[in-house]
Amino acid sequence: MRLIIATENRGKMREIKKILRGIKIKTVSLADLDRTFSIKETGRTFGANAYKKAKVVSRYYPDDLVVGEDSGLEVFSLDNRPGVFSRRYSGEQATDEKNNRKLLEELEHCNKRLRGAQYTCAIAAVKNGKLLFACEGNLSGIIGSTPKGRGGFGYDPVFYLARYKKTVAQLPLREKNKISHRARGFKKFKKFLARYLKTA
Amino acid sequence: MRLIIATENRGKMREIKKILRGIKIKTVSLADLDRTFSIKETGRTFGANAYKKAKVVSRYYPDDLVVGEDSGLEVFSLDNRPGVFSRRYSGEQATDEKNNRKLLEELEHCNKRLRGAQYTCAIAAVKNGKLLFACEGNLSGIIGSTPKGRGGFGYDPVFYLARYKKTVAQLPLREKNKISHRARGFKKFKKFLARYLKTA
Repeated sequence: MRLIIATENRGKMREIKKILRGIKIKTVSLADLDRTFSIKETGRTFGANAYKKAKVVSRYYPDDLVVGEDSGLEVFSLDNRPGVFSRRYSGEQATDEKNNRKLLEELEHCNKRLRGAQYTCAIAAVKNGKLLFACEGNLSGIIGSTPKGRGGFGYDPVFYLARYKKTVAQLPLREKNKISHRARGFKKFKKFLARYLKTA
Repeated sequence: MRLIIATENRGKMREIKKILRGIKIKTVSLADLDRTFSIKETGRTFGANAYKKAKVVSRYYPDDLVVGEDSGLEVFSLDNRPGVFSRRYSGEQATDEKNNRKLLEELEHCNKRLRGAQYTCAIAAVKNGKLLFACEGNLSGIIGSTPKGRGGFGYDPVFYLARYKKTVAQLPLREKNKISHRARGFKKFKKFLARYLKTA
């Protein structure tokens, strides 16, 4: 049994592998598989997308434990947008830069009080088509008025953490990996995985 | 200027008044107003419902600061259901007891790993039709297998907190009011309110 992380995002894969360090299981990403997948994120929630990714991959690799992950940004004054549309917020040709610009434009006339937001990471683990574990991790912050920092990806340059006086993109990766929504979610998954490997 | 909490729920009102203690503003609930409101919670998110409640009331009380609140339960393995349907999960004649029973039935064959959940409370403050503040508060837990405790309301008897080894309904109200999703949300609102009253 391998652990398949149903992502092709190398940044995410690197983060996740670091968090799962110490667990004895061969861990691969979609890029390492002999099949290619094109999974549409059509769910209404992060959790639905995470589950869908894991389930689709599990169909072809029933002997492996497959983990789906979906994450994104919710801004409270924007009715939790961009939400599941985080990656393609600025349209089909979306880039991180365009998405950040669109978000800052939408919030242009909003002061700090209307810039509260959270990052959410949903995780679903599937074996042989069956959901075995589901959880979420969150990180609260404030959307800044200009992008700052070069680390991370996505909305990290505009996601400001008051207690660090920095955006997530300004944090060293080691620091980000301690407190991010993905870290919080995958730490819960790690606990599940440790127990699961003992009993499976 | 008064602070109108756009709720008729006396339990919520009591919790909120306690949290806001120390702030010098006359605070009333919908029950204290000369108009009656029947606001349908038709939003896709807690935030949309909170905003809608505040906005509708603000139309008739433009000189007051109106706060809308909406909260509910999201179970990760159920695609975040019951979500905005938390109160009417078991149908039009829903009661807390029926809702809890329905939830436990849905999770009957799920072990602890599929019972991860969070309570969310969304808050929106509106003055003269304009959104001034929006935030959320969360509380993570696990759905137990049988209801326990007589405190609180809603899903509190099945919402188990691992670090207390108790359900929210088993916590003394004073304890609940320190850590609940509503407390976490309204503490953020309290900070906003304190600053707002200085500058308004």
